Amino acid sequence: MEVVRTIGQAREILRTARKKDMRIGFVPTMGYLHRGHTSLVDEAKKVSDFQVMSIFVNKIQFNDPNDFSSYPRNLERDFDYAKGAGVDMIFLPDDSEMYNNHLTSVDVATLTDNLCGAHRPGHFRGVFTVVSKLFNIIQPDVAVFGQKDIQQAISIQKMVTDLNFPVTIIIAPIIREGDGLAMSSRNKHLSSDQRTRALALSSGLKTAERLITGGETSGDTILSAVRGIIEEGRPDSIDYVSLVNYHTLQPIDAISDTCVIAVAAFFGATRLIDNMIITHDHGRPVCRF
Amino acid sequence: MEVVRTIGQAREILRTARKKDMRIGFVPTMGYLHRGHTSLVDEAKKVSDFQVMSIFVNKIQFNDPNDFSSYPRNLERDFDYAKGAGVDMIFLPDDSEMYNNHLTSVDVATLTDNLCGAHRPGHFRGVFTVVSKLFNIIQPDVAVFGQKDIQQAISIQKMVTDLNFPVTIIIAPIIREGDGLAMSSRNKHLSSDQRTRALALSSGLKTAERLITGGETSGDTILSAVRGIIEEGRPDSIDYVSLVNYHTLQPIDAISDTCVIAVAAFFGATRLIDNMIITHDHGRPVCRF
Repeated sequence: MEVVRTIGQAREILRTARKKDMRIGFVPTMGYLHRGHTSLVDEAKKVSDFQVMSIFVNKIQFNDPNDFSSYPRNLERDFDYAKGAGVDMIFLPDDSEMYNNHLTSVDVATLTDNLCGAHRPGHFRGVFTVVSKLFNIIQPDVAVFGQKDIQQAISIQKMVTDLNFPVTIIIAPIIREGDGLAMSSRNKHLSSDQRTRALALSSGLKTAERLITGGETSGDTILSAVRGIIEEGRPDSIDYVSLVNYHTLQPIDAISDTCVIAVAAFFGATRLIDNMIITHDHGRPVCRF
Repeated sequence: MEVVRTIGQAREILRTARKKDMRIGFVPTMGYLHRGHTSLVDEAKKVSDFQVMSIFVNKIQFNDPNDFSSYPRNLERDFDYAKGAGVDMIFLPDDSEMYNNHLTSVDVATLTDNLCGAHRPGHFRGVFTVVSKLFNIIQPDVAVFGQKDIQQAISIQKMVTDLNFPVTIIIAPIIREGDGLAMSSRNKHLSSDQRTRALALSSGLKTAERLITGGETSGDTILSAVRGIIEEGRPDSIDYVSLVNYHTLQPIDAISDTCVIAVAAFFGATRLIDNMIITHDHGRPVCRF
């Protein structure tokens, strides 16, 4: 596994891989890796030959400077995880090379108005901008994003379509702890008590699944039930419990062909998110969370 | 010369050229070609093997719908010009394929605050967005823009640097009619009287050159002289007569190492622009216009 720290070096190695007709897979991360991240590499490997992972805590996507400075970092541990997952090249760019008197931004309208976009001003613009940069540096054939950050994944898919990036986007399933908590680098901030209470998020989604597969379609009924379960976990606050159309990410009143139930809540100072995608197979609802 | 109308077809042909290790040159245009455009192809040919020209009147960069609908078009004539210039592939995309429920935009801050940016709200965002799309479709090694649209050329260079597009940008000299008028597709809208009066723009820049090479450095003195000459041409209005830093495009008070004098004025309903780049060679000013 090569660890490269400059854009020039990364381009050089990738040029060589491309000369050998290798397809490039790419997993962008902010480090502090867990099995969620390595599952993205597993997905990339199914369709590509040379795996690139970037580790870059992207300052411009943090609307809260404390969240940026406290974002967990542990490179040694990350290298072990990445090597174990079969990553061929780690790209560890420098803040100063990535953002040198930076003036350019990429934004996607309307898809980022709701959910996390409404609660984290400027966050998604920072994500789209860094992902555009990374795509232009790595020039991957395929890039994998996690369903965990569903608004991010869907908006990046739209950005790629709109700007004609020659990259195939894969959205990979959420990886959960044994008890159902969605894996997140931020989980390490949770106290043991907060950790237990935070299970209310995935429990809420399980309840929604039960209602939906039982035939319930009313958004009000489903979201009230989910919110009730989450409140039992005594979160410090709830950002949102929403039912949205998968493609527009706009709120809808009833379960439709392809939609998402997304939740976000604080446990202590830690903001956690979770979600479930609902599709239909021969008219019967299928929930993925 | 191949004429392709879909993104898929363009990618296919370029894949073949790239397989032969050809370097791709790219000249994006809005058609109604003149020698200014073909000179950009000449520049591209010096450093690349396969010349692509796009012809696309990009709706989203027109702040004035009348300007869009009256923008001159003549494809047959364009094909003759392009073939004569040695273009290998013309890319003629469709509005509906380029902008299908389009939500994504690219913007460059501060560089577009002044000059044309101040007078054409949203114009540059439309330019950056379409150029990003075209770069991702064509994936050129080198792209050539004209000095004529100096704010566009400098801002696109900044966008390419900021977003790490793997494209080399060349800014090619302004091509002028025998009497000094900068070539522009919009010149065809000028009446014979307006055409004569519009020479005041290049005359103003010639006066600036004389002053600057004579040692004058005061922005006030130089710009007053330029404005005086332009006013003799009785323009219907003057948008700006400005001295700006080449890299920031912010107004400056005196001639500095690398700077630009840029002018914009209406003759009838037709808005014309012109400019001059001032660099220094061993301390002596050199004017390019």
